[in-house]
Amino acid sequence: MKGVAIVGTGHSKFGRRDDASLRELAFESTKEALEDAEMSTHDIEATVISVANQFLANQTQSGAIVTDYTGMNTKPSFTTVAACASGSAAIRAAWTAIASGLHDTVLVCGVEKMTEVSTPRITEFLGFAGDPKWESRPTGITNPGIYAMFACAHMHKYGTTERQLALVAVKNHKYGAMNPVAHLRREVTVEDALKSRMIAYPLKIYDCSMISDGAAAVILASEEKAKKITDTPIFIVGLGCATDTAAMHDRADLTSFRSVVEASKQAYKMADVSPEDIDVACVHDCFTIAEIMAYEDLGFCEKGRGGNFIEEEQSYIGGKTPTNVDGGLKSKGHPLGATGVSMAVEITKQLRGECGSRQVPGAEIGLSHNLAMHGTHCMVHIYRR
Amino acid sequence: MKGVAIVGTGHSKFGRRDDASLRELAFESTKEALEDAEMSTHDIEATVISVANQFLANQTQSGAIVTDYTGMNTKPSFTTVAACASGSAAIRAAWTAIASGLHDTVLVCGVEKMTEVSTPRITEFLGFAGDPKWESRPTGITNPGIYAMFACAHMHKYGTTERQLALVAVKNHKYGAMNPVAHLRREVTVEDALKSRMIAYPLKIYDCSMISDGAAAVILASEEKAKKITDTPIFIVGLGCATDTAAMHDRADLTSFRSVVEASKQAYKMADVSPEDIDVACVHDCFTIAEIMAYEDLGFCEKGRGGNFIEEEQSYIGGKTPTNVDGGLKSKGHPLGATGVSMAVEITKQLRGECGSRQVPGAEIGLSHNLAMHGTHCMVHIYRR
Repeated sequence: MKGVAIVGTGHSKFGRRDDASLRELAFESTKEALEDAEMSTHDIEATVISVANQFLANQTQSGAIVTDYTGMNTKPSFTTVAACASGSAAIRAAWTAIASGLHDTVLVCGVEKMTEVSTPRITEFLGFAGDPKWESRPTGITNPGIYAMFACAHMHKYGTTERQLALVAVKNHKYGAMNPVAHLRREVTVEDALKSRMIAYPLKIYDCSMISDGAAAVILASEEKAKKITDTPIFIVGLGCATDTAAMHDRADLTSFRSVVEASKQAYKMADVSPEDIDVACVHDCFTIAEIMAYEDLGFCEKGRGGNFIEEEQSYIGGKTPTNVDGGLKSKGHPLGATGVSMAVEITKQLRGECGSRQVPGAEIGLSHNLAMHGTHCMVHIYRR
Repeated sequence: MKGVAIVGTGHSKFGRRDDASLRELAFESTKEALEDAEMSTHDIEATVISVANQFLANQTQSGAIVTDYTGMNTKPSFTTVAACASGSAAIRAAWTAIASGLHDTVLVCGVEKMTEVSTPRITEFLGFAGDPKWESRPTGITNPGIYAMFACAHMHKYGTTERQLALVAVKNHKYGAMNPVAHLRREVTVEDALKSRMIAYPLKIYDCSMISDGAAAVILASEEKAKKITDTPIFIVGLGCATDTAAMHDRADLTSFRSVVEASKQAYKMADVSPEDIDVACVHDCFTIAEIMAYEDLGFCEKGRGGNFIEEEQSYIGGKTPTNVDGGLKSKGHPLGATGVSMAVEITKQLRGECGSRQVPGAEIGLSHNLAMHGTHCMVHIYRR
């Protein structure tokens, strides 16, 4: 098995990008990644594209549009889909293509254009990731409703509070304000968050991630190639991936994601590290409760102690496991297909020491945690300087 | 790089399957593949799912439904998308996962449920694979119209005739009638085909593949594992993949697919074989002209001689390169996400000598050729007994 490293990263500004179409967003991130690696399209052997939702694009083959517009024809390419974890699936597929020896360099580009669709339709389109036969259609439940159930179960079982949920938003906005590519670059107070508009009890608007446009790209290379390209290759040394039931009614426990526990176990084992070794993490805070559950399911703290973990500022820079110091989905934004790739960009920059005011000092080992829908898939990657 | 072989195959009946939902079709094929390999779900380490079109499923995450319903939770999984070549992309991704050493056994399941959607909407949904910004939306062109342009260009440049196109349908229906899983199991005459209803000149209804429901599954294993599982592993020894422009107006030539030429070159080189070595082929005859172009672009005959190739029955059993002797997309059916996997099933059975009346005697090397839309992607796989 060949070693595989990230040798270049690119990231469009996330936000409401009326100035750029899907293909233009992809181009922004791809161009930056090539420049970062000092490579040209000729140096890329293949691409893997991530676009999660065909309804948002009103197109079933955005991958072809992206490869075409970014000058990557006629190189091998396909698109990966795993709802909001599509970007991490793309990195996983690219990793295996290189580790197998089939390719030496693969560019991964994740992109989603979400703001062209009206808000009620977006919520409907995002809800299409559930089980349409037995759950999402008959009951009409959408993502905020599903995560509200997780939050209620967690509050009931472990005494987690609405204030603790709000504190996740406070942290992520604090760091998002420092991140030039973040969608919503402003701090919020715990009082603001607590009195913001209710979406689905106990989740208020500040407990929810945003609808954003954006793209992110990484270039992966084999160890041998990577060392020629850059002095600071960031190796992906652990990969975990697991699935869980499509329907909520089949879950035994609403306070934990089985897919996260399983995927992280695989990744820690492969990387030969433990949760204590993680210097910086990007976790899937599509809703604040998801970040609290991630602390627990990834083993950053004991089960049920996620609320205390944020309260004690253990996920701040200076705490035990700095988490989402790029702003997370909450403040940076969550353009579905881009999100997993955006996490890889952030961890790479952190391990290279390029994050300025939000740099985790001396970070050597990073982790990304990317969920599909309500944990139907979880992808965990571990990175090492 | 580890050797990778197919050790089990499963195939649902293709057709209008009012009796089965998407998840039930996936189950049919998966169960058969497990039984064929004498394996249980416990023996499968990971899955790759292929579902091409989210509009047909009215669902954005059918992969989660499939893994769930086929008992594959919590194993690693993601879905591949490359329009009608999604199934071959899934096999490519599974192949690299095994060749890299990440997994030893991967199940690939491709499925599509198409007949629940009304015909005008299907044509619209399939057209969503084009370039929406500059072509498919502004001009309203759909797939039959695009392939009609290829046919006209080929007729103009090489003198290919409507009768030659019809002969492709005659052959594929002849063999489809012998295939128990085919959608339309009846022979047609060249006269029937020529006088059938015009769809887009020169393509008549018998020049077009059908709207079908169906699923297919293959189990891939590392060489070491494969030899323990079966006495007849079928190795995938060549992989080719290439892309081309999303918009027709960017193509320099409408009589050849650049992606096919490029992908087949890669696959032949990797397998160290030439077109003359191919004993049996499954090619992407979404329209009859596509099969004629495939003969040429894959090197089965000279450029411009595809019409003669079918006229001389060189693609029949007993001819130079028996092609689509399972009925092809034309008669077997074309449930998008299933198609590439179905090709792998057929080639595996041919190389194992299990195809009865439509067996190519002594076949040792097979090839599959799977297109996305109008060749935006092409995946070519070469298999060896």
